[in-house]
Amino acid sequence: MLSKRVGNSTVAFLNPPSVLGFASVVGKKEGEGPLAETFDYINNDTTFGEKTWEKSETRMQKDALTIASNKANLPISAIQYVFAGDLINQCISSSFSLREFGLPFIGIYGACSTMAEGLGLAAMMIDGGFASVTSAVTSSHFCTAERQYRTPLEYGAQRTPTAQWTVTGSGCVLLGDTGPGPYVTHFTVGKIVDQGIKDTNNMGAAMAPSAHSTLSAFFQDTNTSPADYDLIVTGDLGKVGHEIVTDLLRRDGIIFNGNFNDCGLMVFDLEKQDVHAGGSGCGCSAVVLCGKILNELRSGILNKVVFAATGALHSPVSAQQGESIPGICHAVCLSSKLN
Amino acid sequence: MLSKRVGNSTVAFLNPPSVLGFASVVGKKEGEGPLAETFDYINNDTTFGEKTWEKSETRMQKDALTIASNKANLPISAIQYVFAGDLINQCISSSFSLREFGLPFIGIYGACSTMAEGLGLAAMMIDGGFASVTSAVTSSHFCTAERQYRTPLEYGAQRTPTAQWTVTGSGCVLLGDTGPGPYVTHFTVGKIVDQGIKDTNNMGAAMAPSAHSTLSAFFQDTNTSPADYDLIVTGDLGKVGHEIVTDLLRRDGIIFNGNFNDCGLMVFDLEKQDVHAGGSGCGCSAVVLCGKILNELRSGILNKVVFAATGALHSPVSAQQGESIPGICHAVCLSSKLN
Repeated sequence: MLSKRVGNSTVAFLNPPSVLGFASVVGKKEGEGPLAETFDYINNDTTFGEKTWEKSETRMQKDALTIASNKANLPISAIQYVFAGDLINQCISSSFSLREFGLPFIGIYGACSTMAEGLGLAAMMIDGGFASVTSAVTSSHFCTAERQYRTPLEYGAQRTPTAQWTVTGSGCVLLGDTGPGPYVTHFTVGKIVDQGIKDTNNMGAAMAPSAHSTLSAFFQDTNTSPADYDLIVTGDLGKVGHEIVTDLLRRDGIIFNGNFNDCGLMVFDLEKQDVHAGGSGCGCSAVVLCGKILNELRSGILNKVVFAATGALHSPVSAQQGESIPGICHAVCLSSKLN
Repeated sequence: MLSKRVGNSTVAFLNPPSVLGFASVVGKKEGEGPLAETFDYINNDTTFGEKTWEKSETRMQKDALTIASNKANLPISAIQYVFAGDLINQCISSSFSLREFGLPFIGIYGACSTMAEGLGLAAMMIDGGFASVTSAVTSSHFCTAERQYRTPLEYGAQRTPTAQWTVTGSGCVLLGDTGPGPYVTHFTVGKIVDQGIKDTNNMGAAMAPSAHSTLSAFFQDTNTSPADYDLIVTGDLGKVGHEIVTDLLRRDGIIFNGNFNDCGLMVFDLEKQDVHAGGSGCGCSAVVLCGKILNELRSGILNKVVFAATGALHSPVSAQQGESIPGICHAVCLSSKLN
């Protein structure tokens, strides 16, 4: 019965679900970054034609879902279950985008780890025999995140060197029980880790210990090491957090050979784009996955990838009440071929 | 491969997971209501010994999880995956309670439908062969919900007749691959339904169409009718919403015979407790399930129950931007015996 469970917290899929389609939709700044050519749609005024930033974020998710379905050559109605979530209070970006489609909807909340969480659950639903086509979608928008978590843009608040820039973008993946790949082979569900960081302008440091926990668990549960993968990528730790997790893993003897990166470092040019410690947000790892990574898995440039998206599970209220920032990291392993 | 999928949106478990333990924790007002004797713990000052309402809500979840594990005669560490979510921005009640336990954690957001969503996913994880013990937990607190969604309590704002009273309570269920029952036999994932209701003091009306959609789908997918169940219970539609969904189903020819109720009508005495249209909140359906319903399924008073928790997927921001209130309803079918 439990052959699909390996180690303490990892699911190994017996019939790894296949990516059927994927799409990334981004704003202007992301479209000026190093991954520009990997995105399906770049909106150049970042409003996406809507009157409020929240509606813009909703629009991005609708566009990502629509494009991913088109690329999979499937009608949206073929999606049997969709997993979605975002950073905005009560996840309204997801609820209002999915409202349009009439699909069975499962709302999730994993902060910036949402893409990995949704992808893992969507894969479980297929491998468990409950569905043949599922989807995972998420988004973030710089302007909705700033006014909710920090200060309204109009204040022009100064950013600290450790601060990250919330990616304006949405990513969507469609999975199926058969298909051309890449395939989702493993899902490691993270534990909440909180090392007492209280600086809400240093999310990388707050989330790094959870990435350490989940990647350690993943390598142990699967009995593999970094050398077995072409790329291991964290979600949005940025420069500060990625240095911390690299150091924490090195102390355990887990050494990388140029194959460890972070979506927050990949999505922007940190020098030229004035984003301080790098990109962040649910959209950060989602658009890097649904742009560069899945494209390169499909084309065979990459063969095996560990996608470990990270999230900070705090809120402005918890910070005001003196709480530290709990982190979580969920990891999904993708392979271009079935073994 | 898809024998576990029936109809359009229902999962039928091949090896229905068993409830191993369950617990309900409530505040003072709930402890003065008609279900008082079904709760495991009643806190008489509603602070649960904490300094902020948010920390009180976090404490309730910890207590519910601890009591449910004790009742299941299992250490908390035996739980392989836990699903949790709540109403508070960024679901901090769940993140901060689960932070203590070091369990693989999957955050969900379904507003007041969370208990059914978590229970259904926790059951899928077992029936899919990914785990042998999982858990679902949720909560709401009158004081955290009022200040976040409406006005601070100190304002003494007047309540409209259609308003509902957020239940202060937390419910937790532990599921296992074998056990004494009751068993989770089906899970119908809801679609988002929005009929244009904009009155945030009339959640029952906003959510009723989603309950209509999901219950219709459940009866159709399972090829059953209300007469096949001892109890069909909606989450927290209250007086207004429950009348609406009863009427909508009757128009489709789905007639109940005294076996249709609503957790929001059961948890309080509407006449004596001044709660206007009834109870609401994630905790409402959770404590009725983890109190009266599961107790009566265990003792054989009830044999087959459809638990259809409802949620309103709006936020204060979406309401301020003129949006209507999308509703969702997830249904879980429970049976005291395996067929």
